[in-house]
Amino acid sequence: GCVGFALLFALQPALAARYPSFGTVQTTNSSGVLNAVINNTASSTNLFDYRVQADLANLIETLQVNDTDIRVVVFSSFPDMTFPTALLWNISRLPQATIAMVEGRARGIGNEFLMSCDMRFSTTSPSVLLAQLEPSFGFNPGCGGAMYLSNLIGRGRALEYVLSATDIDAVTAEKFGWINRAFDTSAAMKEYVHTLAKRIALFPPAGINGTKFGVNAVSRPSREVIVQKAMTIVDMLAASPASQAYGARFVKATNNQSIGELELNYGQALLGLYNVTEEELKN
Amino acid sequence: GCVGFALLFALQPALAARYPSFGTVQTTNSSGVLNAVINNTASSTNLFDYRVQADLANLIETLQVNDTDIRVVVFSSFPDMTFPTALLWNISRLPQATIAMVEGRARGIGNEFLMSCDMRFSTTSPSVLLAQLEPSFGFNPGCGGAMYLSNLIGRGRALEYVLSATDIDAVTAEKFGWINRAFDTSAAMKEYVHTLAKRIALFPPAGINGTKFGVNAVSRPSREVIVQKAMTIVDMLAASPASQAYGARFVKATNNQSIGELELNYGQALLGLYNVTEEELKN
Amino acid sequence: GCVGFALLFALQPALAARYPSFGTVQTTNSSGVLNAVINNTASSTNLFDYRVQADLANLIETLQVNDTDIRVVVFSSFPDMTFPTALLWNISRLPQATIAMVEGRARGIGNEFLMSCDMRFSTTSPSVLLAQLEPSFGFNPGCGGAMYLSNLIGRGRALEYVLSATDIDAVTAEKFGWINRAFDTSAAMKEYVHTLAKRIALFPPAGINGTKFGVNAVSRPSREVIVQKAMTIVDMLAASPASQAYGARFVKATNNQSIGELELNYGQALLGLYNVTEEELKN
Repeated sequence: GCVGFALLFALQPALAARYPSFGTVQTTNSSGVLNAVINNTASSTNLFDYRVQADLANLIETLQVNDTDIRVVVFSSFPDMTFPTALLWNISRLPQATIAMVEGRARGIGNEFLMSCDMRFSTTSPSVLLAQLEPSFGFNPGCGGAMYLSNLIGRGRALEYVLSATDIDAVTAEKFGWINRAFDTSAAMKEYVHTLAKRIALFPPAGINGTKFGVNAVSRPSREVIVQKAMTIVDMLAASPASQAYGARFVKATNNQSIGELELNYGQALLGLYNVTEEELKN
Repeated sequence: GCVGFALLFALQPALAARYPSFGTVQTTNSSGVLNAVINNTASSTNLFDYRVQADLANLIETLQVNDTDIRVVVFSSFPDMTFPTALLWNISRLPQATIAMVEGRARGIGNEFLMSCDMRFSTTSPSVLLAQLEPSFGFNPGCGGAMYLSNLIGRGRALEYVLSATDIDAVTAEKFGWINRAFDTSAAMKEYVHTLAKRIALFPPAGINGTKFGVNAVSRPSREVIVQKAMTIVDMLAASPASQAYGARFVKATNNQSIGELELNYGQALLGLYNVTEEELKN
Repeated sequence: GCVGFALLFALQPALAARYPSFGTVQTTNSSGVLNAVINNTASSTNLFDYRVQADLANLIETLQVNDTDIRVVVFSSFPDMTFPTALLWNISRLPQATIAMVEGRARGIGNEFLMSCDMRFSTTSPSVLLAQLEPSFGFNPGCGGAMYLSNLIGRGRALEYVLSATDIDAVTAEKFGWINRAFDTSAAMKEYVHTLAKRIALFPPAGINGTKFGVNAVSRPSREVIVQKAMTIVDMLAASPASQAYGARFVKATNNQSIGELELNYGQALLGLYNVTEEELKN
């Protein structure tokens, strides 16, 4: 249920000793804060292929060992990806604090990645658009995106945005609680996140891990529920010619464009796939 | 625990083929959207009597079969009603998206009906007043109203409004997340809901059902909890002469008026039933 | 994990017949509302010592008997305290409605006390600062503070504020839902809470208890989860020299001051304990 959309993150430089290289995942390590940037140079569109998937899984595994040198992970840049339920689940239970910075689209698995992090910050730029678009082609968010949203913005607004596959802008997203905060400029966001990450990284790792453990126990969808949902979708899909037909149309429409109209303005553009216009919906 | 108050909804016209007639429940069916209006012409006050209860139950049962022609249900108009726990529970798990439009009071079971729907929209008219008033006569909301509210607005504000049986206006309700959004005019609300419903109805039903299944799994009170609560109330009531005495006073006070002062301004008027004034409460 | 900070509450006068004296806990009883003020005259800093702990436990036990004369408890004033998990747990499940009024700092166990009450009101005074500061010395909030917060303000903002041990002011706290409402003046807060408490106290106790039971069933961390967390922290701490070292530094720093810089401005002052400045964090 997770066809991903590019999430254009700020890039943060360098490569550190302890986390030397995960191939497509570049890391910087300073004062207990690890900056992780996904950059698949083998693909012109920063595709989330088997290389990235393996490299990111390696990074997450290393972090899971509860390395007390790293207390905060800041993710930035995030490519198209397919269905890595286990990967996102593992991110949500890392012993480190995890922070995502957003400066572009984050739809589908992109938004589910944001949901799996502990905190989310963005700019107020109009290029920031968040959505769970899976229902628009007969799927549901397979990595728990809608379930996390229900904790953040309430089940009413979560169902409104997810069932209609509607884009939310950064200002509204901050108002509802979808993201923690939206900043007027990229520089202001980075300064805030940088200072926040360094502050958290001052503290002993036991408190970070223990606090996350408690909050996760009451506010995170269980793995069982997420996996059941994913399986339910797969079963439903197998039985649903409509989803198959739409999926095929969707793949065809996006096939020859990396950042085309569909990706930039999916919320509107999807209507074209159903051969209706905005005006026709109103009548 | 659910003595209902009239919820004055917008009426939407016509009657469709597939869902021809449920007697007191008039339906319109277009582009995958079913508009359902409850209109008990046998009662001058649109009472939720055995006719409406049976007709609505029939409609819900038909929708439960997961008819792929209907993907969204928009409820409008909603009469006084008594304790239909199973009915509201069944609404909350329909495979279709459910949207409620509010243009008047929705207290007690009226608000619990709103909570059982996926989304809630209203106008900013001062005649929109929402409340769970059960504690004011020694009951609790028996259909989960306070529990849903706790997901939408947080346990602190839910307990403030429910324990004190205080009315909330539409602007505050939108600010807190009790309703998804309040519109300046009835026309603006209807255009928004109409477009939203048609957009959701474009999509394959598997995605709608799967997404609701997941969100319900993490944010809806379980049937066991709701039913246990209802039973707990009944037991408590049986043991509580205060509730019985107040219940009798309440029934007497509302007996000869269909839309009297008590119904229009219950939040204030209930003080009269306790023989105190607003001024006296402050001192 | 709960080193407490003084919470400077409004004092409310007198002592009533039914709840005559709990030593350090002074009570007033009127119209079904019990005002409880913690005032340890044996300690110059209103310390939460064995006297207060025993007296408060006695009061809670008396209230647990579901005395139908008392329907609302308003807590004000709240001293430094250590780790009374069971006490706060018992407060959260009282059959009476519980309301806290805040006019000063409420950090650590102070904020956990607020979370255990049903509702929280404060003034907008800059002296109102709320925080869970446990992670700043390698602990986590052992009485469920971060878990309650996750229901009130969403897991994203809860983790941002708790993991970074950042103070929140009253205006932001109201905006997010951390507190129910912030009032411009102390008088306005007290009038609102007074009227609210008297209104709730009009109603039969069965409805208050039943409503709380339901809301708690879906929105309160389970005792099992809280206690598991507390145990997890203790285990982690035993294995964490960093926490032990920091704890020792913390105790030393606060040892000779009752209301010093650390207590008034812990959010900033903690940086001194780590020998860094605000400026250095930004670079």
